[in-house]
Amino acid sequence: MLHHHRSQFPALANKIYFNYGGQGPMPQGAMDAITQAQAYIQEIGPFGYEAYRWIAPQKEASRSAIASVLNVDKETITLTDNVTTGCNIAMWGLPWQAGDHLLLSDCEHPGVIAIAQEISRRFAVDVTSCPVSDTLNAGNPVDIITENLRPNTRLVVLSHVFWNTGQVLALDKISDVCKRNNSLLLVDAAQSFGVLPLDLTDLEVDFYAFTGHKWLCGPAGVGGLYVNKAAREHLQPTFIGLNGLILDSQGQPANWLPDGRRYEVSTIATPLYVGLKEAIAIHDQWGTAKDRYQQICNSSQYLWEKLTQLAHVNCLKNSPPESGLVSFQLTNHQLHMQLVQFLESQKILTRTIANPSCIRLSVHYLTLESEIDQLVAAIADFCQHHLHN
Amino acid sequence: MLHHHRSQFPALANKIYFNYGGQGPMPQGAMDAITQAQAYIQEIGPFGYEAYRWIAPQKEASRSAIASVLNVDKETITLTDNVTTGCNIAMWGLPWQAGDHLLLSDCEHPGVIAIAQEISRRFAVDVTSCPVSDTLNAGNPVDIITENLRPNTRLVVLSHVFWNTGQVLALDKISDVCKRNNSLLLVDAAQSFGVLPLDLTDLEVDFYAFTGHKWLCGPAGVGGLYVNKAAREHLQPTFIGLNGLILDSQGQPANWLPDGRRYEVSTIATPLYVGLKEAIAIHDQWGTAKDRYQQICNSSQYLWEKLTQLAHVNCLKNSPPESGLVSFQLTNHQLHMQLVQFLESQKILTRTIANPSCIRLSVHYLTLESEIDQLVAAIADFCQHHLHN
Repeated sequence: MLHHHRSQFPALANKIYFNYGGQGPMPQGAMDAITQAQAYIQEIGPFGYEAYRWIAPQKEASRSAIASVLNVDKETITLTDNVTTGCNIAMWGLPWQAGDHLLLSDCEHPGVIAIAQEISRRFAVDVTSCPVSDTLNAGNPVDIITENLRPNTRLVVLSHVFWNTGQVLALDKISDVCKRNNSLLLVDAAQSFGVLPLDLTDLEVDFYAFTGHKWLCGPAGVGGLYVNKAAREHLQPTFIGLNGLILDSQGQPANWLPDGRRYEVSTIATPLYVGLKEAIAIHDQWGTAKDRYQQICNSSQYLWEKLTQLAHVNCLKNSPPESGLVSFQLTNHQLHMQLVQFLESQKILTRTIANPSCIRLSVHYLTLESEIDQLVAAIADFCQHHLHN
Repeated sequence: MLHHHRSQFPALANKIYFNYGGQGPMPQGAMDAITQAQAYIQEIGPFGYEAYRWIAPQKEASRSAIASVLNVDKETITLTDNVTTGCNIAMWGLPWQAGDHLLLSDCEHPGVIAIAQEISRRFAVDVTSCPVSDTLNAGNPVDIITENLRPNTRLVVLSHVFWNTGQVLALDKISDVCKRNNSLLLVDAAQSFGVLPLDLTDLEVDFYAFTGHKWLCGPAGVGGLYVNKAAREHLQPTFIGLNGLILDSQGQPANWLPDGRRYEVSTIATPLYVGLKEAIAIHDQWGTAKDRYQQICNSSQYLWEKLTQLAHVNCLKNSPPESGLVSFQLTNHQLHMQLVQFLESQKILTRTIANPSCIRLSVHYLTLESEIDQLVAAIADFCQHHLHN
């Protein structure tokens, strides 16, 4: 069953793939959908009434497919090109005042850190990060965040699944403490969207930024941002364009669109969104989001257990992973890049992470037990040749 | 020769196309290049060293192809998804102070107007527009702009070719008066990029925002921004991400990249940029930018002359067009939309414009004299049935 399903993903045919968290392999059906949409737009347009009548509902169908992954109304969805753009929309759209506080976890992506630093420079906002990474194996992230909130913390930014360690945060509890503090909560969903079964209505986060090109295996360049309806009132559009506007009869800007589209700018690559919708449909054919997450956990646990048995290898987590990410260190960190290159020479794709220095393996529901066995054998082989007792 | 060249553009096979200024028809070679790039990335990745080694130079090759259209160094080019994003980068990245002045022409795109209004709201910047549209047939835009500059005008925003009337502005002279006033100049190049032979080094503008999906016939969702090297010192990145950053050994943001990439955010659809590069190469096979512009002017003059001979039709311009845009009004403006729909029912694609109320025809070097004849005959036919002396 899984072998048959996997045959739809050409990238998986000639390699052993553990970089889903970097970029997912596209199903052929999604690539074909893009090519066909591009060709069809040429047939009916590309620009005119007929083309518009086809393109507009395609965008909305993609928006609906994305909303279904999050279990929210499609009116809450803004289409963006990637996770970071979604974070930019949420972070730049707040009415920052000098002295306001912005709190990050200490495992955020460098792009997000750089946004916070620039907001700090421009508006004299106080940016701090809190040591959530220390709770990977013991302690409670909720306590750390609670301790680091200040009366004037306007925004908390953290990842649902940490991109370096794979730690999963309990967003419902974190959302509670943020709400009690009147702090808005922006979640970087790069490593959770397409992994965890999600119901954002339950989680009550304000902003949830995600991408289609990682765990959902859509094309690079498509993503989105969920903005909670109540939070929308606090969030002004920053990068602005025709796609977010209501025009008056003279074609002049009259108001923002009433929904998530207000944060959209201008012309996008609609065929790519058609491709993402197709990729979502293909995953759903294999199983529900819950089924897929269960399969991810089974496989990442299997991988984690195998790794813990290797000499010279230390998994960052000392209990089975709760996401698709399994990160480990060699006793000699200097060899991480060499190991990744050795693995790639054997057509096994992984990646290094700088902080903490480690190698990150991504396991999807598409991953085979035999792939994990080959990976672990190759790591053991490398260690035997390069590390000595 | 032109018939043979046109056969590469499938959209032109089943219709008569006058919407190049909305979106250009893609050559089959550009669509194939996208499909092939997407497939190749799957074969070698999508994420790993080998994929990166292929993708990174593809992006840079597209950047070079874009730079060649503008006759500038590729280091000055920021890749964006459309014109409006480029305008956002330039407009949000300046160190606005309360009371600063931002000057627009009165023919700017609603997206750009909305950006200016939001900047005004957030930073108490004074935004005004000046009546350049009055100079379509008489008068000098440079005088109008000069009169409307103030000592504290930080930024002037105007289009190289007005999207509604097709008027072409003398940027070299406007740039001079802006420089003398210490005002930066942002140019919206939506209707000039791919139409006019360009040498930005000569024009000395600070910021030039453009898109690939109109006159260059690339895919929707690819564009860029030129930032003059001196102006870069005044322009801070706003929407920020990994693609614009130098990281330190711990993977933390250390600095901006030294060139136009600093304004780029994160993951983009590289295959689309491969497609744009291919589209540029296909145009260059037909003739130089100068040859193509000459052909555009010949055809737009031919169209303009034919239109001026029709009863009930008034061209906005009373002299031959200097761009690919030819806008006209019917004596009864209420019929504009009906005419566009009538034309589309005959597979002739045009569009209405709200302000000034008119119908806009786009003529490219790809346009045939026979297409113009058919268009004019259809307009005459419509007028005969719907307008009476």
